[in-house]
Amino acid sequence: MQEVAALKSLFNKYKAELLEDYKALLRIPSISADPAYSKEVLKAAAWIETYLKESGLKVEVWDTPHYPVIFGSWLEAGPNRPTLLLYGHYDVQPVDPLDEWDTPPFEPSEREGKIYARGAQDNKGQLLYTLCAIRALLKRDGKLPLNLKITIEGEEETKSTGFIQILASKAAQLKADYFVSPDFDIPALDRPAVTLGLRGLVALTVELRGSKLDPHSGSHGGMVFNPNHALIELLSKLRDEQGRVTLSGFYDDIAPLSTEERKLLSIEIDEKSYSQEFGAALTGGERQFTPGERRVLRPTLEINGIHGGYGGPGFKTVIPAKALAKISCRLVPGQNPEKIRRSLTHFLEKHCPPGIKLTLVDHGGDPAVWSSPKTPLAQALAKAYTEVFQTPCGFTLAGGSVPISEALAKTAQAAPAFMGVGLLGDQIHAPNEHFDIFRLELGFLTLARFIQLIGVA
Amino acid sequence: MQEVAALKSLFNKYKAELLEDYKALLRIPSISADPAYSKEVLKAAAWIETYLKESGLKVEVWDTPHYPVIFGSWLEAGPNRPTLLLYGHYDVQPVDPLDEWDTPPFEPSEREGKIYARGAQDNKGQLLYTLCAIRALLKRDGKLPLNLKITIEGEEETKSTGFIQILASKAAQLKADYFVSPDFDIPALDRPAVTLGLRGLVALTVELRGSKLDPHSGSHGGMVFNPNHALIELLSKLRDEQGRVTLSGFYDDIAPLSTEERKLLSIEIDEKSYSQEFGAALTGGERQFTPGERRVLRPTLEINGIHGGYGGPGFKTVIPAKALAKISCRLVPGQNPEKIRRSLTHFLEKHCPPGIKLTLVDHGGDPAVWSSPKTPLAQALAKAYTEVFQTPCGFTLAGGSVPISEALAKTAQAAPAFMGVGLLGDQIHAPNEHFDIFRLELGFLTLARFIQLIGVA
Repeated sequence: MQEVAALKSLFNKYKAELLEDYKALLRIPSISADPAYSKEVLKAAAWIETYLKESGLKVEVWDTPHYPVIFGSWLEAGPNRPTLLLYGHYDVQPVDPLDEWDTPPFEPSEREGKIYARGAQDNKGQLLYTLCAIRALLKRDGKLPLNLKITIEGEEETKSTGFIQILASKAAQLKADYFVSPDFDIPALDRPAVTLGLRGLVALTVELRGSKLDPHSGSHGGMVFNPNHALIELLSKLRDEQGRVTLSGFYDDIAPLSTEERKLLSIEIDEKSYSQEFGAALTGGERQFTPGERRVLRPTLEINGIHGGYGGPGFKTVIPAKALAKISCRLVPGQNPEKIRRSLTHFLEKHCPPGIKLTLVDHGGDPAVWSSPKTPLAQALAKAYTEVFQTPCGFTLAGGSVPISEALAKTAQAAPAFMGVGLLGDQIHAPNEHFDIFRLELGFLTLARFIQLIGVA
Repeated sequence: MQEVAALKSLFNKYKAELLEDYKALLRIPSISADPAYSKEVLKAAAWIETYLKESGLKVEVWDTPHYPVIFGSWLEAGPNRPTLLLYGHYDVQPVDPLDEWDTPPFEPSEREGKIYARGAQDNKGQLLYTLCAIRALLKRDGKLPLNLKITIEGEEETKSTGFIQILASKAAQLKADYFVSPDFDIPALDRPAVTLGLRGLVALTVELRGSKLDPHSGSHGGMVFNPNHALIELLSKLRDEQGRVTLSGFYDDIAPLSTEERKLLSIEIDEKSYSQEFGAALTGGERQFTPGERRVLRPTLEINGIHGGYGGPGFKTVIPAKALAKISCRLVPGQNPEKIRRSLTHFLEKHCPPGIKLTLVDHGGDPAVWSSPKTPLAQALAKAYTEVFQTPCGFTLAGGSVPISEALAKTAQAAPAFMGVGLLGDQIHAPNEHFDIFRLELGFLTLARFIQLIGVA
């Protein structure tokens, strides 16, 4: 435990600087989904480039058709030492509904030991403790116990479409033994766990158009087919009364989980405290599975957005010309994203009511990725968590998806694992996203300790 | 026809002034549904007050709990002459979606003989030719052939909640023999028709809440009940596959229409030209009725708005905390608004899925109002249309609702009828609302000729 104590001193030396850098990065509204923020996304990229250079890494800016990938490396540990590839992102989610934020999303606000801002956890918080740990180790020791590579991209929240396109051309530079993405949660502060896998994702936008313009519901109501009704009719058929997805073949290819594997996993949810914290009953999804199973072991279909007609104050008696929905499926191992996307597209086209024009926009797809708890990588991560948290570390799975993860690990020919000190209550992707300052320390310590351990594994 | 020729000369004398006044009123963004525009709504009220005074009417400003009603009168025709009560409104609908307007909604734009602006037809266009006709007759003749009263309110688009509350207290001043609202359409330019009735309206907002905040669909998907799904499930049950509304008792009280009454009505829609103009198939509503019947003779239930989660560019994998829908029913004679509202409320409460919190906001209700084609009022209007349009005038019904109409006619103890020179393609309540300049003339002539005819009826 001597090593962790030494790392604590090191953290304290860097704490003030880390907090200042963290807030500076949070102030940049790097929303990749909205082209209006493109200058800000590029500003965040430049900020990261400078940070890595000042940390003593060799830095390259990899252009993509969209936002650049910042590639940093320190490769002087020699060929006998393993190579670790890390991953992070400098972009953030959109901020709407803006009126539900207690403080402006891009003015980091400190309250009761927490920092509130868009990106406070996902990923700027977790990225900054990672980068600071690397900087601190390098400055203190003049070296690292392994060869380190890190890729930080600007389109994680929009499915990494730029990075994906240049991956193959960077295969040689990305080559590594281990791949770790520090963008993840632990089940609870007293239940650290290594994340062994992620669900995959398929996403699309469906637009239904009923007429050229928004007709008045008095003058036209009863004649034109209101696209709101068409959308409701169409989407209502996607799930049955048991919460099961009705798409043909949706559950067919799910890979079975052995009893031994199931036993290792720490995925239970405390329903009572969850309901209190989120003000939500756990009544969504497939009735025959537990909430924890539904969250990570089962695939889902969610309507992430539905919009048509008037939604403002008062009332407006309009029939909208068009209505849209944003639909995503979370996938588990065995499910093929392309097959699921085809099944969803076919379903929507087949059931679209007469007189309504359907348009689909595909937002891509990625399979789930899971790895074994028995690899040296998973074991080193578990040991680092155990030492820092002073409690035995378990294994878990994430419900979310990082589109690039599977592709990146495969290109690098590296064994993947996922770590982090996020919590389910951090409100990532939601108003009032936040992160504890003391978790910057927990993350810094775990990441730094992991680098020490895997460097000699 | 000599009288119409004389009225044409009179119109030409006032045409330039009318156009200038019309544009000035259109430039005031008097959106009553949005409190942010309250100063502008009041500005429109003051504009109307000045216009009436300068026309030679006696003017009172009636305060209401919301926006004032401007009451103008000219009562010097004597007790042997009838009293006509007119009605109009100076407020307009909201303008969203703003990006679908070709020119800014409050900068009137003249293109190919049409004026494009919010309110161009509804009701500023039809109101201005009405006011100008009264002014012109008064200035030319020094008198009118009848006693005239006009009420112009600022909350027609938000269900006249202010005016309704002061109605009873103004009963004596409102008393009239005839009530006419010039806020209506004709079936086509070569098919003038007196509008004998309107549908009623019930409207409410339903909000479903699933959690306190917007959870991430990866971390929470499969656990919480997505309110978008709950809303889709709930609303999908409101109509069956034949387009019939499933609410208990919805069709029970509809007053039967005699064969003779049905024959008199000119309500047919040219499906082909409608589909071309509006880019819409007439596949909405109850399958067993014709589009024209569905439009005015049958009640409807429409989802005027549905909103939950992300709707912007790209994709956001969020499960919204809440989702909302705006629901309205158009009612026909016999249907009781309160009974329909109760049935709808009961349905929504009964079918709201477990784990979801339902909140309803009632936007009020009004019954349908129909009158006979045989009254002196309907006959005088028909004669005025026939002379001005030089083609026989028919009778029709409106699909829309003017919440205040029934209450106002009843309070005034007056026989009601509805006129106007609107067309179904004017895009009222929608982007690019417009009105033909030559229809300002048709409206002016019809209204002025009607005043002459009913004054001696």
